[in-house]
Amino acid sequence: MEKVLVNLDKNSYEIFIGSKILGGVDKFVEGKALLVTQKNIFDTCAENFPYEVAFIPDGETSKSLQEAEKLYTRAIELGLDRKSVIIALGGGVVGDLAGFVAATFMRGISLIQIPTTLLAQVDSSVGGKTAVNHKLGKNLIGAFHQPRAVFIDLNFLKTLPEREIKSGLGEVVKYGVISDENFFTYLEDNAEKIFQRDLKTLTHVVKRSCEIKAEVVSTDEKESGLRRILNFGHTAAHAIEEQTHYEKYRHGEAVAVGMIAAARISLELGKTSAANVERLENLIKKFGMMTTCAGLNADKLYDVTFRDKKAVSGKVNWVLMKNFGEVEICSDVPAQIVKKVFGRLCNGD
Amino acid sequence: MEKVLVNLDKNSYEIFIGSKILGGVDKFVEGKALLVTQKNIFDTCAENFPYEVAFIPDGETSKSLQEAEKLYTRAIELGLDRKSVIIALGGGVVGDLAGFVAATFMRGISLIQIPTTLLAQVDSSVGGKTAVNHKLGKNLIGAFHQPRAVFIDLNFLKTLPEREIKSGLGEVVKYGVISDENFFTYLEDNAEKIFQRDLKTLTHVVKRSCEIKAEVVSTDEKESGLRRILNFGHTAAHAIEEQTHYEKYRHGEAVAVGMIAAARISLELGKTSAANVERLENLIKKFGMMTTCAGLNADKLYDVTFRDKKAVSGKVNWVLMKNFGEVEICSDVPAQIVKKVFGRLCNGD
Repeated sequence: MEKVLVNLDKNSYEIFIGSKILGGVDKFVEGKALLVTQKNIFDTCAENFPYEVAFIPDGETSKSLQEAEKLYTRAIELGLDRKSVIIALGGGVVGDLAGFVAATFMRGISLIQIPTTLLAQVDSSVGGKTAVNHKLGKNLIGAFHQPRAVFIDLNFLKTLPEREIKSGLGEVVKYGVISDENFFTYLEDNAEKIFQRDLKTLTHVVKRSCEIKAEVVSTDEKESGLRRILNFGHTAAHAIEEQTHYEKYRHGEAVAVGMIAAARISLELGKTSAANVERLENLIKKFGMMTTCAGLNADKLYDVTFRDKKAVSGKVNWVLMKNFGEVEICSDVPAQIVKKVFGRLCNGD
Repeated sequence: MEKVLVNLDKNSYEIFIGSKILGGVDKFVEGKALLVTQKNIFDTCAENFPYEVAFIPDGETSKSLQEAEKLYTRAIELGLDRKSVIIALGGGVVGDLAGFVAATFMRGISLIQIPTTLLAQVDSSVGGKTAVNHKLGKNLIGAFHQPRAVFIDLNFLKTLPEREIKSGLGEVVKYGVISDENFFTYLEDNAEKIFQRDLKTLTHVVKRSCEIKAEVVSTDEKESGLRRILNFGHTAAHAIEEQTHYEKYRHGEAVAVGMIAAARISLELGKTSAANVERLENLIKKFGMMTTCAGLNADKLYDVTFRDKKAVSGKVNWVLMKNFGEVEICSDVPAQIVKKVFGRLCNGD
């Protein structure tokens, strides 16, 4: 079993990564526990958890105040108190919703994350972001609430649909770009093994991703500075997802296109080289992911970037690429450059 | 103008206490601001705020996820972002609800508290507790979210109904008991001036209360230890409020009866003297507050104490009195002692 420490003083916790490690969850449960999950995930999970279970419906629509309210009710009826634990078993939807409930039930109780998708394992389960959606926008209601522990069982990846693997790889590639060229090279060299679900390869991919995220989050828990670099590829991705009603692209797929957008903007601004952009695009192609957002309207896409949660005082904070492992925040990218880059991507190029 | 610092490292803030001080709020507003209040409070407030205003209905039922959702919607429609501020102008209901929205909108934005009741000025606006109610219990959904500043304008107290003054005094008396015998003596000596709304007396009462609360909260922001002493009188108070459906007693009135319960339990356990208990009861009488919960059922009251948010693993943490300025937490008060004390209070004695 591998371990990654997320160092946040009193809020520090460990990420356990391995195979058949879920027996360790119980050590973190003192009082009562409520396991929040989805029926199909629970059925495929080999572990026999001795906890009360609350099922939430599949799909992003479960990330609502209404579902949260049902979970509060269940928690109260079960007599959960401030020493109790909520366990999130599932992908990002489960983790975000259960995390939000843990953050706000009795002003915050313990949370254990057991992410079951690659995307949740390398991204959403680590770092303490929890949220539900508002009808006017995704993740607009939420809280920072660090888990007490994260258990990443790689066996979940064996049965994960290939498209879910690809979606997770969007975030994985991002870590290579923002922080570690060696890791980027490792991904270039091991694409096949990843898709063969080779356990050793997946262990390295997940662990290195968690290490990079942990490092960034430890420096800036609440996203006032450095943490923003995790947003590389996300400014355009959020706009693409919104314009396609969160239906056409999985999150990581939109991030892949968004990274290409950010890299091309960086190139236009002379911050990076054409070779770097090409290398990024090639890895995304190698992973079999979409590289454009053909069919969308570039002007609309541009307008939507200003509705991003990370936009402050009408300015969009673009994360731009300089080299692999080196990015910078830029809040004054000229409109015509963004529109030019979006225009090409919307034309399928 | 008086100032009290709440010392919480990065989350530190000042409480400004005085007359006509609300012009200072604007210094804490950088971007957009949304003022949350109630119609009648807004109409009686002399200050001409240049902010967008959201009105919430009067009464405790406004502390709901549904009202919170309306405020999120308003905030989104107004284009509030992470640098924006929510300003809570009102009593505990406004502060708790607006505070919860500030705590959870975009994972937390700035909050400024302008408490307009004595209870809110000496208690709920300070310390970062925010909450809404669940249909199965009060304040069960919430978060710790410290304000950026608290502005206490004592002019609001001039027109406050006398019963609201009394309710606030419940918490004020508590500060004397848990932390400062001199302050308790001051209250004994200045009861008349308080009810005459003498500004100098009210300034001292509010400032000293805030100082004591600030001191406790600074030591234990999230109620893992010392902060529990603020719960003196509240174990029985919450049960009394619940059994009377939050209708018969104002919160501070229930706290007054609850303090008598806690003091008598302390006496039964030999932890305090009969003279101390009498002195506490005499001040509560002097303030014209109820001293019993005549008509309630002692056994039911006892059962309800176990449903308290602060009960952990089936144990109720009673805050007991030793001397003025000296209390202790006790989690194993024998049932028959609690029931005996409740029995007398329920008999109107």
